[in-house]
Amino acid sequence: MTARTVGPVRVVGTGLLGASIGLALTNLGVDVILSDVSPSAVRLAIDYGAGRAAAPGDAPALIVVCVPPDLVASIVATELAAYPGALVTDVASVKLAPLGELRDLGADVSRYIGSHPMAGRERGGAVSARRDLFVGRPWVVANHEGIADRRAADSAIEALALDLGAVPVEMDAAEHDRSVALVSHVPQVIASLLAARLSEASEAAVELAGQGLRDTTRIASSNPELWVQILGANAEPIVGILERYRADLDEVIAALDSPDAPGARR
Amino acid sequence: MTARTVGPVRVVGTGLLGASIGLALTNLGVDVILSDVSPSAVRLAIDYGAGRAAAPGDAPALIVVCVPPDLVASIVATELAAYPGALVTDVASVKLAPLGELRDLGADVSRYIGSHPMAGRERGGAVSARRDLFVGRPWVVANHEGIADRRAADSAIEALALDLGAVPVEMDAAEHDRSVALVSHVPQVIASLLAARLSEASEAAVELAGQGLRDTTRIASSNPELWVQILGANAEPIVGILERYRADLDEVIAALDSPDAPGARR
Repeated sequence: MTARTVGPVRVVGTGLLGASIGLALTNLGVDVILSDVSPSAVRLAIDYGAGRAAAPGDAPALIVVCVPPDLVASIVATELAAYPGALVTDVASVKLAPLGELRDLGADVSRYIGSHPMAGRERGGAVSARRDLFVGRPWVVANHEGIADRRAADSAIEALALDLGAVPVEMDAAEHDRSVALVSHVPQVIASLLAARLSEASEAAVELAGQGLRDTTRIASSNPELWVQILGANAEPIVGILERYRADLDEVIAALDSPDAPGARR
Repeated sequence: MTARTVGPVRVVGTGLLGASIGLALTNLGVDVILSDVSPSAVRLAIDYGAGRAAAPGDAPALIVVCVPPDLVASIVATELAAYPGALVTDVASVKLAPLGELRDLGADVSRYIGSHPMAGRERGGAVSARRDLFVGRPWVVANHEGIADRRAADSAIEALALDLGAVPVEMDAAEHDRSVALVSHVPQVIASLLAARLSEASEAAVELAGQGLRDTTRIASSNPELWVQILGANAEPIVGILERYRADLDEVIAALDSPDAPGARR
């Protein structure tokens, strides 16, 4: 298979997502430059075959910022300034907040286009990286009006997504954030709250737990620090959904308290 | 393999659980008598090899009542009266309510011992029956003080559970109901409420839904009528857990509303 992506590609942040992108692109023959605030994280990712170390004179065509959500805007701004010829994207699971922060920072967002690959694992770090991590997963391309050449930017991110086996999905930042609040962030909150209740389980109760329970709480074991950032950065749509969820929950509790009340069976 | 269970075993209610029990016991050479309020349901289960039709003079040693929770007490009482030589058990997922109802009905509970195999499928009916349905699953034996010969009753239900490949777990009715409220009933409510929220998802949002979401909502697709009965019959412990869950949810909503408040990150 020949790569659609035009390199060099600079990957900033060599955790699970960054290292997985590096592995997949390197495997396709793309020149991948790895960078991380931790030199040992870079060495680890290089050892795994995810790319090479940065060198003076590197002129990446595309930069993929794979850092925790609260660092995205500042790192993207730094990369935009350091590499004036590069298109810059990120992989954070919220898209409206970083775009707003970049504008506040006065960054050149004409070369920034947001991404969100809907992929991940419960375990993080380059040690968990897999070059097939994105295969078959949706890859959101979050266009915005400030991009200088939207067609070129779209094509570059689509090429990246397709090279990784993902399915590109065009969506604006606000629609993306509302959608992931519903299908990803709220389910995560709900699984975590259920897991918290289970901490009160007796040994007997644990013995009875079945697959249904394991399924419902599996995603609750994900990185809590990362989730605090994600939830905080997308609070508005999440709170809206959780409030409607709480209203439904109140109805269930009321119905179980007075089973003969009208509508209780519903 | 030789059956530990002493037959004949009469199975009342030839849905998913009853037919699965019949299939497994028949396969071990046990004489299984099938009964159901629907003659065509019995014929179907017989066709599948789950046992034979009832005949005059049948003298079952063990009766397994596999009917919806709100019918358990009345059917168990009928069976106790009709077969004075038989031990009677049921497979309902609540245990305190049927025992109380049986006492209210004046039934001879000295020959009744509750069971709850922690197994099931999203699809019901004899058509979904499998003789390996119970393999590796916990099978609660819910002893109570009114049983005439507890050791014999325990042994009979343990033999049944082991013949089906299940793992017998002794537990009193109240502890059972509290435990399943936590590990089964509350997760079911929570999955259903989440599924209800997802009915508002846009097409774009559905495109982004991942495996995490499918896991969380998988069990929500179970038979709603059955669940209304189960939740109603175990309302007290369920409401207690749901109220604590709601308190946690309130905290999350408050924290997301004011991210700078103390304790918000927790």
